[in-house]
Amino acid sequence: MNRVELFEQIQKKSSYLCVGLDTDIQKIPKHLLDHEDPIFEFNKQIIDATADYAVAYKPNIAFYEAHGIEGWKSLQKTIKYIPKDIFTVADAKRGDIGNTSKMYARAFFEQMDCDSITVAPYMGEDSVKPFLEFDNKWVILLALTSNAGGKDFQNLGLNKGGELYEEVLRKSQEWGNTDQMMYVVGATRAEALKNIRRIVPEHFLLVPGVGAQGGSLEEVSKYGMNSHCGLLVNSSRGIIYADSSEDFATVAAQKAKELQQEMAGYLGKYL
Amino acid sequence: MNRVELFEQIQKKSSYLCVGLDTDIQKIPKHLLDHEDPIFEFNKQIIDATADYAVAYKPNIAFYEAHGIEGWKSLQKTIKYIPKDIFTVADAKRGDIGNTSKMYARAFFEQMDCDSITVAPYMGEDSVKPFLEFDNKWVILLALTSNAGGKDFQNLGLNKGGELYEEVLRKSQEWGNTDQMMYVVGATRAEALKNIRRIVPEHFLLVPGVGAQGGSLEEVSKYGMNSHCGLLVNSSRGIIYADSSEDFATVAAQKAKELQQEMAGYLGKYL
Repeated sequence: MNRVELFEQIQKKSSYLCVGLDTDIQKIPKHLLDHEDPIFEFNKQIIDATADYAVAYKPNIAFYEAHGIEGWKSLQKTIKYIPKDIFTVADAKRGDIGNTSKMYARAFFEQMDCDSITVAPYMGEDSVKPFLEFDNKWVILLALTSNAGGKDFQNLGLNKGGELYEEVLRKSQEWGNTDQMMYVVGATRAEALKNIRRIVPEHFLLVPGVGAQGGSLEEVSKYGMNSHCGLLVNSSRGIIYADSSEDFATVAAQKAKELQQEMAGYLGKYL
Repeated sequence: MNRVELFEQIQKKSSYLCVGLDTDIQKIPKHLLDHEDPIFEFNKQIIDATADYAVAYKPNIAFYEAHGIEGWKSLQKTIKYIPKDIFTVADAKRGDIGNTSKMYARAFFEQMDCDSITVAPYMGEDSVKPFLEFDNKWVILLALTSNAGGKDFQNLGLNKGGELYEEVLRKSQEWGNTDQMMYVVGATRAEALKNIRRIVPEHFLLVPGVGAQGGSLEEVSKYGMNSHCGLLVNSSRGIIYADSSEDFATVAAQKAKELQQEMAGYLGKYL
């Protein structure tokens, strides 16, 4: 999916909601455990319930890998099941030397046919570039993450000026353009968004951490939105685990709709 | 496997060789393609041929993921096939927020039963700690990588002094001890090893980049070895793709033996 198509979806649905599929067999409703593939069954019902309100789904690859081959089967089925007009993010945090990153790109862009993959920047340019060689596929590079440990290295001050995450934003713009690269920016530090938008005014930002991780959707929208929206805001646990009864999908739909409606307001106000 | 057992293996075999299983279906000998699982068959023959000279095997996870479910099957079979007294490294470069890293740890430590996993440090403490909660399992944290892009961020000078990779070495010592943490240190910058050994005198270092990536085994050994060896030196392409005929395993054994014998000399000289 290209940037124009993504923005069209955002406008059509008045939403920039990404639903995180961090599907944990220990957290899904018990009645699903009778199904042959409970993880896929859960995802299927979540997707059916939320597809009207979401422009993106983000399976968290670790949750599938933890189940080995069976997990990969659930993941493949899930990605195939997501409607083609909805953007898919393989939240995989990959990144390795060139010939290896190329293999990861094949795994997620060819085998899985995801639209995008999250990539860690530590190994630099040649670890990211192989992912940028696929048409209409995206790298979503980690810049500023919302977890406590994010500050261990990302906020270190550099001799050349600025902090590490700012250098990641600056340097990586030499590797790819706004039609193929986004950034992960943690919502719990919304005040940093102003600064980030000075460095990457045009890029899409994937913002995790709204909801369970405590970020404010209004702040993110106010400081992060650009002329083509430029935001995908993720909620995982706040939607998919909002209810653990047989009504989980209905409640997930309500939660997704609430976020979508709030987003519709911000699109009217800040776009 | 714990540190004492690893050092015992090193002494027993007079070797600190890690064989990288970057098994690429397009590079393995053509006659293997008739097998039901050519990737596993290749690995099996490589393992049989080199097990006397290697103390560790390092499957590069990307090469298996690129084949989806079939690739995971080959990977699982490969890891099961590796003799239990040989250390296994899941070269996966994972790392994510706590609950996600925990899932990756389950994938590689429980599902796969690997001894260790390579982890990227960008997301900090809580992205690494879940891997450290498993007994006799190891994190091998990226510090200084041997690829060209490694310098993009790892060598940035910090306001607090030193370069980013040095801060990664320093800070991460607060998270785990020398019995559960190693570091990836690129061999193509052997002069940096002296400095690294000042920061992490006791840790094991996993050194890629000897062979195809151009590092010198003697320099690595001279500057990197400590009183319990403290080195695992990896060679992938230089061993597994040394020959593409039906004799590939015999040639791989020769190449592994050559490295082992060179290592035996350095163990005599520098240990």
